[in-house]
Amino acid sequence: MARVGLVMGSDSDWPVLEPGYRLLGELGLEAEVLVASAHRTPEEVRRFAEEAEARGFCAIIAGAGAAAHLPGVVASFTTLPVIGVPVSGSALNGLDALLSIVQMPPGIPVAAMAVDGGRNAALFAASIAALGDPETAARLAGFRRRQAEGVRAKNQALQAKLRA
Amino acid sequence: MARVGLVMGSDSDWPVLEPGYRLLGELGLEAEVLVASAHRTPEEVRRFAEEAEARGFCAIIAGAGAAAHLPGVVASFTTLPVIGVPVSGSALNGLDALLSIVQMPPGIPVAAMAVDGGRNAALFAASIAALGDPETAARLAGFRRRQAEGVRAKNQALQAKLRA
Amino acid sequence: MARVGLVMGSDSDWPVLEPGYRLLGELGLEAEVLVASAHRTPEEVRRFAEEAEARGFCAIIAGAGAAAHLPGVVASFTTLPVIGVPVSGSALNGLDALLSIVQMPPGIPVAAMAVDGGRNAALFAASIAALGDPETAARLAGFRRRQAEGVRAKNQALQAKLRA
Amino acid sequence: MARVGLVMGSDSDWPVLEPGYRLLGELGLEAEVLVASAHRTPEEVRRFAEEAEARGFCAIIAGAGAAAHLPGVVASFTTLPVIGVPVSGSALNGLDALLSIVQMPPGIPVAAMAVDGGRNAALFAASIAALGDPETAARLAGFRRRQAEGVRAKNQALQAKLRA
Amino acid sequence: MARVGLVMGSDSDWPVLEPGYRLLGELGLEAEVLVASAHRTPEEVRRFAEEAEARGFCAIIAGAGAAAHLPGVVASFTTLPVIGVPVSGSALNGLDALLSIVQMPPGIPVAAMAVDGGRNAALFAASIAALGDPETAARLAGFRRRQAEGVRAKNQALQAKLRA
Amino acid sequence: MARVGLVMGSDSDWPVLEPGYRLLGELGLEAEVLVASAHRTPEEVRRFAEEAEARGFCAIIAGAGAAAHLPGVVASFTTLPVIGVPVSGSALNGLDALLSIVQMPPGIPVAAMAVDGGRNAALFAASIAALGDPETAARLAGFRRRQAEGVRAKNQALQAKLRA
Amino acid sequence: MARVGLVMGSDSDWPVLEPGYRLLGELGLEAEVLVASAHRTPEEVRRFAEEAEARGFCAIIAGAGAAAHLPGVVASFTTLPVIGVPVSGSALNGLDALLSIVQMPPGIPVAAMAVDGGRNAALFAASIAALGDPETAARLAGFRRRQAEGVRAKNQALQAKLRA
Amino acid sequence: MARVGLVMGSDSDWPVLEPGYRLLGELGLEAEVLVASAHRTPEEVRRFAEEAEARGFCAIIAGAGAAAHLPGVVASFTTLPVIGVPVSGSALNGLDALLSIVQMPPGIPVAAMAVDGGRNAALFAASIAALGDPETAARLAGFRRRQAEGVRAKNQALQAKLRA
Repeated sequence: MARVGLVMGSDSDWPVLEPGYRLLGELGLEAEVLVASAHRTPEEVRRFAEEAEARGFCAIIAGAGAAAHLPGVVASFTTLPVIGVPVSGSALNGLDALLSIVQMPPGIPVAAMAVDGGRNAALFAASIAALGDPETAARLAGFRRRQAEGVRAKNQALQAKLRA
Repeated sequence: MARVGLVMGSDSDWPVLEPGYRLLGELGLEAEVLVASAHRTPEEVRRFAEEAEARGFCAIIAGAGAAAHLPGVVASFTTLPVIGVPVSGSALNGLDALLSIVQMPPGIPVAAMAVDGGRNAALFAASIAALGDPETAARLAGFRRRQAEGVRAKNQALQAKLRA
Repeated sequence: MARVGLVMGSDSDWPVLEPGYRLLGELGLEAEVLVASAHRTPEEVRRFAEEAEARGFCAIIAGAGAAAHLPGVVASFTTLPVIGVPVSGSALNGLDALLSIVQMPPGIPVAAMAVDGGRNAALFAASIAALGDPETAARLAGFRRRQAEGVRAKNQALQAKLRA
Repeated sequence: MARVGLVMGSDSDWPVLEPGYRLLGELGLEAEVLVASAHRTPEEVRRFAEEAEARGFCAIIAGAGAAAHLPGVVASFTTLPVIGVPVSGSALNGLDALLSIVQMPPGIPVAAMAVDGGRNAALFAASIAALGDPETAARLAGFRRRQAEGVRAKNQALQAKLRA
Repeated sequence: MARVGLVMGSDSDWPVLEPGYRLLGELGLEAEVLVASAHRTPEEVRRFAEEAEARGFCAIIAGAGAAAHLPGVVASFTTLPVIGVPVSGSALNGLDALLSIVQMPPGIPVAAMAVDGGRNAALFAASIAALGDPETAARLAGFRRRQAEGVRAKNQALQAKLRA
Repeated sequence: MARVGLVMGSDSDWPVLEPGYRLLGELGLEAEVLVASAHRTPEEVRRFAEEAEARGFCAIIAGAGAAAHLPGVVASFTTLPVIGVPVSGSALNGLDALLSIVQMPPGIPVAAMAVDGGRNAALFAASIAALGDPETAARLAGFRRRQAEGVRAKNQALQAKLRA
Repeated sequence: MARVGLVMGSDSDWPVLEPGYRLLGELGLEAEVLVASAHRTPEEVRRFAEEAEARGFCAIIAGAGAAAHLPGVVASFTTLPVIGVPVSGSALNGLDALLSIVQMPPGIPVAAMAVDGGRNAALFAASIAALGDPETAARLAGFRRRQAEGVRAKNQALQAKLRA
Repeated sequence: MARVGLVMGSDSDWPVLEPGYRLLGELGLEAEVLVASAHRTPEEVRRFAEEAEARGFCAIIAGAGAAAHLPGVVASFTTLPVIGVPVSGSALNGLDALLSIVQMPPGIPVAAMAVDGGRNAALFAASIAALGDPETAARLAGFRRRQAEGVRAKNQALQAKLRA
C-alpha cells in the first residue's frame, strides 16, 4: 500500500489538510502525519524529509500559511515529489502563502495546489501513487466517476426544483 | 525509459518550455511534444489527454499564458499527474496564468509551477518518474549534487572577486 | 421567444446566477439551465455547447469560481456569444475567477461580467436578444426606465429623510 | 451588412483596436470608428451612443485605458451590447482599466475583453452579428477552422524542428 | 456660507458618505445631497454637474463603488474640484473603485480619497472652502486641534490602563 | 496671481512633476518648487508646510514614489489642500506610492492623483485657484475647450487616415 | 534592563501591539508606550523619536494601518532601529499598510514585520537587545526552546487524536 | 569592529546586495559574504546561521527573489537579527519575494526591507551595530547629515535650473 507523508507547521492548518487526509484513506493510501515547523522546529522537518524516501513515501504533502516556507524546505531535503497547500488564515487571505509556495526558484520544484486545496493535494498524490499501482488507479478512476455522477445529480436536483 | 507529455497552446510558449524539454533529455526521460490549444483545437487536447495513459506517460506538462486553461482541460480527461506552467507574456505578467492554473476546483488537481518555470516542471516530472526507476532517481540525485556544487562554485568566485 | 443557455459548474454557483435567471424571465426570455463542470463532466459541457446553436440559444451564460474555466471551455465549442460570470467564493474573493474568465487568448472571446454579476449577464444576453426582437427591446427599455425611476425614488427618499 | 461601432478615447488606443478593426473587415462587417473621450468630449460620446441603434449597429466596441470609463458611459446611453477593451498603457499595466470596465454596477452591463484584446472584441461582435446573418456565421466558422489549422501547422513545424 | 455638492450612485453608499455630510455641517458648510447614477440616470448627473458652479458649490464630493465612474463623469461636466470617495462594497473590497476613481486620464482630474473615506472628503472640501473664508478656516483649525487633543486623551487613557 | 507649492522628495521625481509645473504657468499660476524629503530632510518639509499659508499658496502639490509619505507629512502641518502624485519608479510600479498616498487615515486628507499624474495635479490646483479668480477660471475653461478640440482633431485625422 | 519604545497612531491599534507588549515583559524588556499620530500629532511623534536615544531605547516599534506613515516618520528623526507593524483594519486588509511601511526610500530604513505581527516585532526587538545582554539572550533562547516544544506537543496531540 | 553576515541564494542577487556591502564598508562595518541557497545548499545555510553568533555578527542580511525562503531559513537557526531583502527579478516583480520575506509566522521574525533595498539593509544593520558602538553611531549620524545635504544640494540645483 502506497504511503504519503503529510506535514504542517501548526495544528491550526489541520482543518485544511484533514479532508485530504480522509480522502487518502478512501483512496486506499496510507498517510503519515507530522506537525513540524520550517522555522520553529527545522530539525524535525529536515529529518522527516530526509527519511521520507526510506519510509516508502511516494509523495509529501506540506500545508502552510503566510510565508509558507514549509513545502520548499521539505523539497530542499528530498527528491520525492512535494505538494504544497497554501493555507488562507493570514490577513492577505492566502495570496502570500500561494506565492511563497508556487514561486520556487529553478532547481527545486514544489507542486502548488489551490489556496486551502487540501483535498486536491490528496488526489494529486493519489495520481502519482496510481502510476505503479493498478488498485489505486482503479480507486482514483472510481472517485472520478462518482464525482461526475455527483455533478449530474446536482443538475437533476436543480432541474427538478426549477420545474417545481 | 519513462515518458513525459509536453503540451502548449501556442509555439510562442516554446521558449519557456524548451529548457524543460532539454532537461528531461538530460535526465534520461523521453518527451513527446504537442502544440494544441484548449480553446482553438480542443479535440486535439482531449485526444492527447485521453491517450496519455496508453502511451505510457508518467506525467503531462502543460504550459499556458493568460487565461491558461490548458493544464486544467488536460487534467479533466486523464488521471495522470498534470503539471501546469504559467507563462508570463500577457499584460498582467503571468499573474493571470498563475491563478488560472493553480486555483483548480476540488476534484481535479493541477500541480502549478512558478511563472515561466519550465525547468522545474521537468524536474517535478522526473521526481515522479524516479519513484519507479532507480536510474532516473540516480540522475536526479546527480542533478541535485551538481546544482549544489554550482552554488558553491559561485560562492568561491564571489569570494575571490571580493578578495581581489 | 429568444432562449438563453445558463450553465454553472456546481449548484453552489446558483445563488449568483439565480437573480439573472429570474431577470431573464421578467424580460420575456426563456432560460435553459444546466449544472455541468468543465473539469468533472467535460463531455456534458461539450455537448451542451455544441448543441447550443441548434437549440436556438442567442447566448450562453456560464458562471464559475476559482480557476473558472467553464466559460472558456464552452466558448471553445461554439461560436455563439458566451457571457462569463466570475463567482467570488474562493479565498481570493473572485479575482482568480475574474482573470481566468476575462483573459481569454486571441481567437476565442468570452464576455466577462463583474464578479458575482449574474443579473448583468442576463441583461447583456437580453441586449443581444433585443437586436432581432422588438418585444425584448421594448422590455429592456422598460427595465431601464424603471431602473432610472428607482434611482430617482431613492433620491427623493433620502431628501425627505434629510429634511425630516 | 452588419455594422459595428468602434470608439476610443484617444488615438493612442488605436494600435490596440486596429487589429480588431481589420478583423471586422475580414469577417464582412462594416465598422464605424470614432475618437471621442468620456471625459474630454462627453457630448460626442453621448451622441454616438444615443444614435447607435438608429445607425444599425449590432454592437459597440469601446477601448480605453487607466480609469477607462468610456465603455460604461457608452452603455449608459444605449441598450445595444457594449464590448469593452481595457488598454494597458498605464503604470498599472491595464489592471486599472480592466477593473474599471468589468466591475460595472448592476443594471448596466459591459462585456469585458482581455487587456489589449482588440481582436477578441471584433470576434465577439461578429458572434452577435452572426445570430441573424448566415453569411457572417459562415465567415466566423471559417475563421475558427483556419485558426485551428494554424495551431496544427505550428505543431507540425515544431515537430519537424525537434526531429531535425 | 460655502456650499458643497454631495452625490452618490445609490443610497447604499450613504453609510459611507453620511459621516462626511455630518462633518460638513459641523464645519459650517452647507451640503446639497443627490442620489444619481452615472450609468442609470446619466442625465441627472450631467445636470447636477453643469449647474454646480451656478449654485455656488466650491467642491463636489462623489462616492461610488465597483466601476465607480460617478466622480469622473461629474468632473467631465464641470471645472469645479471633484473629490471621489471609493466605496468598498464589492467582492474586490474597493480596490476596483479606488483604481477607477484615481486613475483618471490626463486632462480631467479627480481627487481620490481613501476607500470609504467619506469624512476625509468633507475635510478636503472644507480645506478648499477655507481658502476664501476665515470662519471656515477657523473651524477647520479648531477641528484639527480637537483631533490632536483626542489623540492625547487616548494616550493618557492607555497610560492609565497600563499603570493600573 | 494665485500661487501653488510644489514639493518632491528627490529630483528624480521632477520628470513627473515638470509637466504639471509648466501647465501651472500656462494657466497663469505661480509655482514655487522645493526638493525636500519627508524622511531625509523632515525639518525642511515641516517648515515649507507650516509657512505655506502665509506665503499665499492655494494648494500644495507633493510628488513621491515608493512609501511616498511626503504628501501626508505635508498635510500634517497645514490645513491647505494637499494634492499627492504617486510616482512609479519602484519595482512595484507605483502601486505602493498610490496606496501610501490615497489611504490617509481619517482626519488628515490628501487628494490623490493617478500614478505619474503630474499634469492632473496642476489642473486640480487650478480648479481650486479658479474658485476665487475669474481669470484662472477662464483659462481653465479655455484649456478644457482646447483639449476637447484636440480630441476632435485626432478623430478627424483618424477618419482621414481610414478613408485614405 | 533594555528598553523598547512602542508607539501607535491610535488606540485602535493596541489589540495588535498588546501581545508584543506583553511578550517584551516576558522577555525581561521594559516597554514605554505612546499613542501619537504621524498626521494628527506630528510634534509628539517627533519629540518621542528625537528623545528615544537619550531614554535608552534599543529599538522603537511603531504600529500603523492604512497609509501607515508612523514608522517612517519616526525613523526620519532617529538612527535607532525602527520596527514597523502593518495593521490590517482597512478595506485593503493591511496590504496598504504593508507597502507603506516596507517600501521606505533609500537612506531611511524601517524593518517591516508581517501584517498584524505585533509579537514578532517584540521578538525582533529582543534579538537586538540580546546582542549586548546575555540575560535577554538567554530568555530569547528559552523562548525559542519552549516554542519548539509547543510544536512538538501539538504534534503528539494530533498523533494521539489520529490513533484514537 | 562590528561584523555583518551577508548571504544570498545566487550571485544573480549580488547587484542588489553589492551597494549595501559597499555601504557597510563606508560605515566601518566588516561584512562577510556567502552565496548559499536555502533550497540548493541548505546545509551551508544552516551552518552559516548556526555559527553566526560565534563569529560575532550583530546582524545577518539575506537577499532573495521569488519564493525567497533564505531569510526565514536563516532566522530559523539563529536568534540574531535577520534582515531580508526581496529581489525583484521574477515575473511578479518582487511582490512574491516581498510577501515571502515579510509574512513570517509568529515566533521567528525577519526584518523586511523594500524590494531591491540592499542599501537600506546595510543602514539598518548599522543602526543595530551603532547601539553598542559610538564610532559606528557617529558614522551613521554623519551619513544622515551628508544625505540631508545631498537633498538640499539637489534642491539648489533645481532652483538654479528653474531660474535659468
